Amino acid sequence: MSTQPLRQPGNDDRTGDHSPKISLNGFFSPRSIAVVGASETSYWGRNIFRNLTAQGFEGRIVPVNPKRQTIFGIPCIASLRDLTEPVDLVYIATPTDTVGAVLDDAASVGIRHAVIIAAGFGESGAHDRQLELQEKAAAHGITILGPNCPGFVNIAQRVSAYGQEIPAGMKSGNVSIVLQSGALATVIMKLACTHGIGVSKLICMGNEAIVDTADVIEHLIADSETRVIAMFAEQFRNGRRFLELARQALVAGKAIVVLKAGRTPEGQKAALAHTGAVAGDEAVVDAALRQVGVARVRSLEELLITAGLFASGVHIKGARMGAVTASGGACDIIADRASDEGLELPAFAPETKKALSEYLPTFATVQNPLDTAAVDTLRDTGTAAVPMDVVAEIVSRDPNIDFVLYLGFNVVPQTRPDDAEADKQAARMIHVRDMLDASPIAIVPVSLSCMEVGPFAREIYDANRIFMLGGIEFGITALGHCVRWQKACDAARVAAKIEPPAPVIAPGNSRKGPWSEHSGRKLLEANGVPLVPAELVSSAQDAVAAAGRLGYPVVLKICAAEIAHKSDIGGVALNLHTAEAVRDAYERVAAAGRSVNGAHVEGVLVSPMRPRGVELFAGVTIDPSFGPTLAVGLGGIWIETLKDVSLRVLPVTQDDIQSMLRSLRASPLLDGARGGPKVDIAKAAAAIHRIAQASLSLGDQLQAFEINPLWCLEDKVEALDVLIVTE
Amino acid sequence: MSTQPLRQPGNDDRTGDHSPKISLNGFFSPRSIAVVGASETSYWGRNIFRNLTAQGFEGRIVPVNPKRQTIFGIPCIASLRDLTEPVDLVYIATPTDTVGAVLDDAASVGIRHAVIIAAGFGESGAHDRQLELQEKAAAHGITILGPNCPGFVNIAQRVSAYGQEIPAGMKSGNVSIVLQSGALATVIMKLACTHGIGVSKLICMGNEAIVDTADVIEHLIADSETRVIAMFAEQFRNGRRFLELARQALVAGKAIVVLKAGRTPEGQKAALAHTGAVAGDEAVVDAALRQVGVARVRSLEELLITAGLFASGVHIKGARMGAVTASGGACDIIADRASDEGLELPAFAPETKKALSEYLPTFATVQNPLDTAAVDTLRDTGTAAVPMDVVAEIVSRDPNIDFVLYLGFNVVPQTRPDDAEADKQAARMIHVRDMLDASPIAIVPVSLSCMEVGPFAREIYDANRIFMLGGIEFGITALGHCVRWQKACDAARVAAKIEPPAPVIAPGNSRKGPWSEHSGRKLLEANGVPLVPAELVSSAQDAVAAAGRLGYPVVLKICAAEIAHKSDIGGVALNLHTAEAVRDAYERVAAAGRSVNGAHVEGVLVSPMRPRGVELFAGVTIDPSFGPTLAVGLGGIWIETLKDVSLRVLPVTQDDIQSMLRSLRASPLLDGARGGPKVDIAKAAAAIHRIAQASLSLGDQLQAFEINPLWCLEDKVEALDVLIVTE
Repeated sequence: MSTQPLRQPGNDDRTGDHSPKISLNGFFSPRSIAVVGASETSYWGRNIFRNLTAQGFEGRIVPVNPKRQTIFGIPCIASLRDLTEPVDLVYIATPTDTVGAVLDDAASVGIRHAVIIAAGFGESGAHDRQLELQEKAAAHGITILGPNCPGFVNIAQRVSAYGQEIPAGMKSGNVSIVLQSGALATVIMKLACTHGIGVSKLICMGNEAIVDTADVIEHLIADSETRVIAMFAEQFRNGRRFLELARQALVAGKAIVVLKAGRTPEGQKAALAHTGAVAGDEAVVDAALRQVGVARVRSLEELLITAGLFASGVHIKGARMGAVTASGGACDIIADRASDEGLELPAFAPETKKALSEYLPTFATVQNPLDTAAVDTLRDTGTAAVPMDVVAEIVSRDPNIDFVLYLGFNVVPQTRPDDAEADKQAARMIHVRDMLDASPIAIVPVSLSCMEVGPFAREIYDANRIFMLGGIEFGITALGHCVRWQKACDAARVAAKIEPPAPVIAPGNSRKGPWSEHSGRKLLEANGVPLVPAELVSSAQDAVAAAGRLGYPVVLKICAAEIAHKSDIGGVALNLHTAEAVRDAYERVAAAGRSVNGAHVEGVLVSPMRPRGVELFAGVTIDPSFGPTLAVGLGGIWIETLKDVSLRVLPVTQDDIQSMLRSLRASPLLDGARGGPKVDIAKAAAAIHRIAQASLSLGDQLQAFEINPLWCLEDKVEALDVLIVTE
Repeated sequence: MSTQPLRQPGNDDRTGDHSPKISLNGFFSPRSIAVVGASETSYWGRNIFRNLTAQGFEGRIVPVNPKRQTIFGIPCIASLRDLTEPVDLVYIATPTDTVGAVLDDAASVGIRHAVIIAAGFGESGAHDRQLELQEKAAAHGITILGPNCPGFVNIAQRVSAYGQEIPAGMKSGNVSIVLQSGALATVIMKLACTHGIGVSKLICMGNEAIVDTADVIEHLIADSETRVIAMFAEQFRNGRRFLELARQALVAGKAIVVLKAGRTPEGQKAALAHTGAVAGDEAVVDAALRQVGVARVRSLEELLITAGLFASGVHIKGARMGAVTASGGACDIIADRASDEGLELPAFAPETKKALSEYLPTFATVQNPLDTAAVDTLRDTGTAAVPMDVVAEIVSRDPNIDFVLYLGFNVVPQTRPDDAEADKQAARMIHVRDMLDASPIAIVPVSLSCMEVGPFAREIYDANRIFMLGGIEFGITALGHCVRWQKACDAARVAAKIEPPAPVIAPGNSRKGPWSEHSGRKLLEANGVPLVPAELVSSAQDAVAAAGRLGYPVVLKICAAEIAHKSDIGGVALNLHTAEAVRDAYERVAAAGRSVNGAHVEGVLVSPMRPRGVELFAGVTIDPSFGPTLAVGLGGIWIETLKDVSLRVLPVTQDDIQSMLRSLRASPLLDGARGGPKVDIAKAAAAIHRIAQASLSLGDQLQAFEINPLWCLEDKVEALDVLIVTE
C-alpha cells in the first residue's frame, strides 16, 4: 500500500483533468481501527465506540489516550507508536494543533488510512495549515478523509469511523450517500429508515484536503455494493471530472441523485460562507447535470425518495403511466403532477377498458388515472389479494402503458392491527410481491402522502421486498427522474463518445486577447461555419469595387482587433445603396478607426446587407468548473434583457443544439410566428455545431467566442459577426 | 326550523350571486342521530357506530333497520316513522333508489338535517334523479349534505355522521377541512395526526345537490371554533361568491388554504371525469385566489402543513427571516427555498453579530442563515435550555428580522429515550414554550425533514403547545403563504370596498353583438379612456378635410359593427402622407366596406398615425365562474404566441394594474430595454383602469371588451382600436 499514488500537495483547486487518482480500496471497510483522542465523555469520542458496538463490528478497536487505561472496557494505548501491529485506519479525534504529530505517529507504524475530525483548516481560512496537512499526507503516503469531517458509516459491512449518532434501525442496501455537509447525515439516515431504504455507505467529505468528492464517486461507481449514489453537494470543484464520472455511471447503470445547494443567488451565498467555495454559474451546473442524466432534486425528502426508487431496481421503461387509485381526488392530483413531470397518462386499450368495466362497479368511470370506485368494499377476490390488486393486474397488461402507479395500499394501518388482521395483511403482501414479480411491466406501489407508512406497514413491506414510494408529491417527481435517467442511460450506451476536434491553426493569427473580425472569420471558415461574404479593403475605391461584386446594399465595418464595439465609435455604416454612399462611408469608417489610439486597423470589411430574418446568438464561454459551455438564444432583447438562453457544456451534438433551440421561451419565433421570418432549425443547429467545434479547436487558449448575430432566413444561415478572445 | 330558507330546486349550476343562503347552524353538532340502513357488517353502516363510540358521543343514536332488533346492542326501529321524538340528523346509508322514501319518512317526523351516502345521482349522469332529490328537499325543508357523501366529522364536539374510518389519535383544534373528494379524508386526517394539527370539523361535500361548498365556507367563517379552512377543491361552481367569502375571511382574520385540482389540462380532465364539472380557465382561478389572499397549495402535505402553521396562531409580521440551524447544509437549502418563496434573509444588526460572536465558537461564521457550529456540544447553559435556544433568543431580538426560523430540534429522538433523557427534553420544551411566549417576534420551530417527528417528540411538543413545522421544504412554503396572507389581510382591512361603476348608456348604441369602432369609441370616451383622435367621414372630400385637421400621416378604417377584422377585407389604409393618398384610400376602403354583405357601414374613420411605441393589450372577458376578468399584456407575439399575459378578476385598482404590468415576462420592454420606447406605467394603468370600468358599465350585457393596441410612448397613452361585444 505504500506505493499508492497520492496527489501532490499544494494543488488546492485541482481543476486539472489529469490529477493522479486516489484509490479508496479498503478505506471504507477497515478490519482494525485506532481511535486517537478516544474518550468516554466527549460527544465525538463517545459516539465512535457506541456506533461500532451497535453495528456489531467484529474487528479490532484500539483506543489511544495517554491519560486512560481503558475506554469502555477496552485497553488503551498511550500513542499510536505503541501499536504492536498496524491498524487499517486511524480515526483522529484530537484538537487541531495535534493532528500533524498524530499523522507522524501513524506513518511510523505503517497506517495508510485516516479520518480527521478537527476543524480549523481551510474552511476557516487557515489555508497554510491545510497545505501542511496535504504535504504531510503525501510524504507519509496516508489517504485522509477530512479534516473537519465526522467520518463514514458502512452499514453493509457493519463498520464505521463516525463521530455522530447513527439512528437505530438502519437497513443495509445499495444506496451510498455522499455529503458535503456532515450535519445533514442524521436527518438523511432517518429519512432512509422511515422509507425503508437500505444504505451501503454514508460518507461525509469534510474539507476534501486529500480525498475529494470525485474520488469517492469514482470509488462508488466501481463498488459492487452500490447501485445508487445520493449526494448533497455545495460545489463541484472539478465539474469536468464529475461529468466524466457521471457518464461512466450511466454506462454502468448506476444512478446519481444530487441535492445541489446554490440554486439561487441567496443559496450560493450561504454555500460560499459554509465552504469558502467559489460560486460557479448555477445555470451551467443545471445544464451539465441534465446532460449526463444526473437526477437533480431540490429537497432532502426528494433526495431519499428518488434514491429509494432507483435502488428498488424497478425498470421504468418509458413515460406512459397507468394509475390505479381508490380516490377520484387522488386521480386529479396525480394528473396534475404527472403533467408537471412530463409523464403521460394514455387512454387504456379497448381490451383493458372492457376488462375493467366488467370488474368495477357500474358507477365507476373507466379511464386513466383510474378511481376504482370503492371496489374493495364491494367485492371479494376469494384469495389473499384485494380487488384493487386484480385491477392493478388488469392495467399492467395494457399495451399502451409503460408502468403502473399503484395506490392500493392506503388501507394498511399505521398501528399494528390485531393478529387476524395482521395475518391477512401479511398474506396480501406475499400476493402483491408475486404480482410485482410476474408483471410484464413495473408496478410501483405508492402511498398517498409521504408520511403514511408506520412501523407495522414497514415490517410487512420489508419482509416482501416492497419499496413503497413516499407519496404522490415526491413519488411522481421520483418517477419523472427515473424516466429521464432511463432515457439518458439508453442514449449513453448507444452513443459514440463525442471527441473534441483537433486544434486548427487559424491562418494568419497568433495573437492573444481579442481577435479582429477578419481573423475570426478565417477561423470560422476553416471550420466550415457559413459566413456572410466579406472583402477586406484599404481604400474607398476598393470598397466600391467590392460592393459591386457583392451586390448592393452593403455594410462597411472597421476591422481591428482592438475595436470590439465598432458601432460605438462610428466604425459601422449600414444599408449603403450607391457607390457614392460607399465612398463617403469608407472615409467616415476609416477615420473612426484611426481615431482609436493603439488600434492596428487591418482595413474595412465590406459585406452585403441581409434582409430581415431571425437573429440568433451562439456563444462559448469557459465555466470555471465545467469548462467550455455553449449558450444559444435569440439575439437582441431576448438574450440581453429577457435572459432567454439555453446552455450546454461542450462537446454537444447537432441534435443537442436542436433541443436547445426548441427549449427557448421564444422558440415559436423560430417557426415564423405571426407571419415573421422562419428558421431552418436543422441548418441553424448544424452551423452552431460548427461554431462550437471552431471554439474547441482553440483548446486551452479559448476564452470567449461569440457569433452575434447568426442570421437565419428560411434555409439560409450566415454568421454576420464574430468575436473571439484567446489568452 | 321549518322556516329555514332553502334554495329552489332545479337551479343546478347556480352561478347567480343572489341564491338564498342555506343556514348550517346546528347541522354539524347534532345531539341525536338516526342511522337508516344501520348494519353491523357493511363498511359504511359499521363505521358510523364505531366512529361515534370512539369519539365518546354522548347523544342519542337510533339505528333504523326493519330486519334487526338491535345493532351493536342498541335497540333498532324499523322505520323513521317509528321515532317517538324527532332526531337532529338522519344519516341515510340505504341504496340509491330508497333514498326518496327515507326522506319522506324523515319529513313526516320533523327531521331537518340529512346526510346521504348513496351514489348514482348527478355524478353518474342521473341528473333527473338529483333534481327529484332537490325538489323533495325543498318541499320537505330538509337540508342535505350529499348525496354521494360519506358525511362529516366534528372532532371538537365529539360527534360525527361519517361512514369512513376516523384514524385514532385525532386532536381537537381550529382547522376545519372541506373536501370535494371524500376518499382523501383518511390521508388528510392521518397527516393532521402526524403533524399534531388539531381539527375542528372535516366535511365531505359529495354532489352538493343542496348544501354546496360555499355554504360550508360561509358557515365556517362564522364558526368560532374555526380559525383555518383547509380545502381540497375540484371546482368553484360560483367563483364570485367564493371570492366574496374569501374577502370576508380575510377581514375576519381566518385563513383559507386550498389544494385545487386541475392546475394542468390533464388534471382538469381527471377532475371533470370525477365530478362532471365544467372546467373553467385555470389561469383565472389562480389569479382570483391570489387576489383574495387564499393560499393555493399543490400537495396534500403542503395543505396540512400550511394549515397547521396558520392554526398555530403565529404572527409572521413580514418577509424578513432570521434562520438558526445546526447545519451549514441546512443553511444552503434554507437560503435556496427562501429565495423561491420571496422570503428575505437580511444581514443581522451589528449588536446581534456582536452577541453571536461572543457566544458561538470562534470558527463559526456569523451570518444569516446561521450555522451554530456545534455550539450544543461545546457549551452548557446551566439551565434546561440548550445553547441553540440562547442563540435563537439573541436572533429574535434583532431589529432587522420579522421572524425566526428555528431548526434547533433535530436532537429530539424518534423513539422514547430513557427517563432521565425524557425528563431533560420535557424540561427543555417548557423553556422553549416560555421563550416563544416572551419573544418580541415569532420564533417558528421547524424540523429538518417532514418525517422527523416521532410519537415521543409529538407528546412533548403537544404538552407545550409547540407546533413543529414539518420540514424545510414544506415549512418554508408555508411561511411564504403566511407572509402573503398577512399582507392580504392588512390590505383587506384598510381597503375601501371597490364598487363597480354605475352603468353608462353608450350614446347612440343599443345593439347586441359586436359594436362598430365608432360606437365603441363613444363608450370609451364617456368613461374617460384616452383615445387617438378620429373623425367619422362619408366622402373622400371629408376624409381629406379631416386629415388636414388631424395632421398627416393618417390612417383610414372602415367603420361597421359587422366588420371586426377590417384589415382582412382591405378595410384599412395606413400611413397616408398626402391629400391624394387619402382620397385614393377612401375610395378603396369604402369599396371594401360595400363588398361585405349585410354590413351596415357607418362611414370611414380618419385618425392620425402614431409613431412606433409600445403596444399594450387590455381585454375583459367573462369567466363562467368568476365573471368579468381583465387581461393585460404586450400586444402582437407577446400575447398571441408567447401567452405572456396577466389576469385579474374585476374590479381592480390602478395599483393592481401596475402590478399586473410589472409581472409580465416582457416587463423590461416597458422600461425601454435596449433603447426601445418607454411606457409611463402609472398612466397606462390609469387608462386600463378606465377601460375596465367602461367594460363593467355594461353590466350583465358585457361579453367581450378588447383594446388592441393601447399605444404608449413616454407619457402618451391612447387606445387605437376597440372591440366590444354585448348580448
